[in-house]
Amino acid sequence: MAWVAGRLGVPAIVCVPGWVDPVKLAAIEAAGAEARRVGDSYDEAEEEAERIAREDGRVLVPPFDDPWIVAGQATVATEILEVVPDPAEILVALSGGGLVGGMAAVLESRGLGGRITAVSAARADVMRRSLAAGRPVRVPEEETLASALAGGIGLDNRVTFPLVRDLVTRFLDVSEDDIAGAIRGAARHHGIVLEGGGAVALAALLARAEGRIDATGAAAPAEGPIVVVLSGGNLDPARLSELVRG
Amino acid sequence: MAWVAGRLGVPAIVCVPGWVDPVKLAAIEAAGAEARRVGDSYDEAEEEAERIAREDGRVLVPPFDDPWIVAGQATVATEILEVVPDPAEILVALSGGGLVGGMAAVLESRGLGGRITAVSAARADVMRRSLAAGRPVRVPEEETLASALAGGIGLDNRVTFPLVRDLVTRFLDVSEDDIAGAIRGAARHHGIVLEGGGAVALAALLARAEGRIDATGAAAPAEGPIVVVLSGGNLDPARLSELVRG
Repeated sequence: MAWVAGRLGVPAIVCVPGWVDPVKLAAIEAAGAEARRVGDSYDEAEEEAERIAREDGRVLVPPFDDPWIVAGQATVATEILEVVPDPAEILVALSGGGLVGGMAAVLESRGLGGRITAVSAARADVMRRSLAAGRPVRVPEEETLASALAGGIGLDNRVTFPLVRDLVTRFLDVSEDDIAGAIRGAARHHGIVLEGGGAVALAALLARAEGRIDATGAAAPAEGPIVVVLSGGNLDPARLSELVRG
Repeated sequence: MAWVAGRLGVPAIVCVPGWVDPVKLAAIEAAGAEARRVGDSYDEAEEEAERIAREDGRVLVPPFDDPWIVAGQATVATEILEVVPDPAEILVALSGGGLVGGMAAVLESRGLGGRITAVSAARADVMRRSLAAGRPVRVPEEETLASALAGGIGLDNRVTFPLVRDLVTRFLDVSEDDIAGAIRGAARHHGIVLEGGGAVALAALLARAEGRIDATGAAAPAEGPIVVVLSGGNLDPARLSELVRG
């Protein structure tokens, strides 16, 4: 968002929780936006953004529960299908459900329903708990390597909860150790720096391959090409340094 | 080479100097080839490879001074031109001259001569010293972050010395500090893990932008798109950990 605003020359304020990774703050500011640290949770940051938009007449760009945001994230699926027209499975990080829901909608519209595996960090699994409860629920934010996936889905969720509920059939959870291992493996073997939230899909693939995830609860994917979405790389250098050493 | 042999199911022996990075050895073996550590220099490793080929009737795959190897490396230029048809400058790592020479030949054949900037590690600059001497010379191998660029060009060089001499007009050298900074910057800001030898072209771009390289000796490139070739990522995790922390 900060990057797009910078490219368009539009002044932007990005509201984030106080504990947000300093490297993420720096990236927001390097893109030319103002980073505003608010409270202790993404929910509080979002409330502040809504207040600023209301009081200063600014346009609110919601993080996920909005048809346009979902449609934008959905283009990840259209780009994947240009390269891999018939994927057996696409593993994607699940947080507020914008990316997962948008991609699932694209796949459904192309007759490729059931291909998504939505992967949560076990410590940021509010969408899974909401699905289990049958309605959006609030869960305290826990500390996790996948901090970008933390935050609620909104008790008045309108778009992403129904999308994920109706279109996604396969879910996996990953532990902090799985996420750390995926960050380490991506840097060591693939030359790619990932943040925890961007690494959960890879973590699930590895954990399943190594038998650390019980995949019996999830409908097994068909045989064929597997696509893993790596969805974020703003990892603190000190943390990268520590994790890569292992 | 190990990777291609593995894909084709062809048994391969890769000769490397004794000091080679363990992570490179591991990558060779993971690809299914046998890594053989020989002596203290790439020149000695190459002599051993020639001996094995002669005595066991195996096919020798030379590291750079061979028309087919040069032609293969030249495809990097054809791929770049598909994306950037009229680059003002392409910065490329210079070692034995296979990659630089092949790319320069492609650019020359497309009427794009003079676009290459060949970048040496100051501690592995045997091609530059050979060009200054007017013939291939031998230089003791020094320890450098860009260890993959170490090794001679062969006193009986047939292909790459003439190519680089005749087609490349712009050369830059980078220091160990410049290389370390490029590795750090690539990991921190671009999410890419590079080994030293793969980072020299980026190091030169940064050092020139920050005024640390005196570019007056080199013919200045025209205005326009600049392409940087990142040519290797087998960096030891402990070294990555150390460098990224800075």
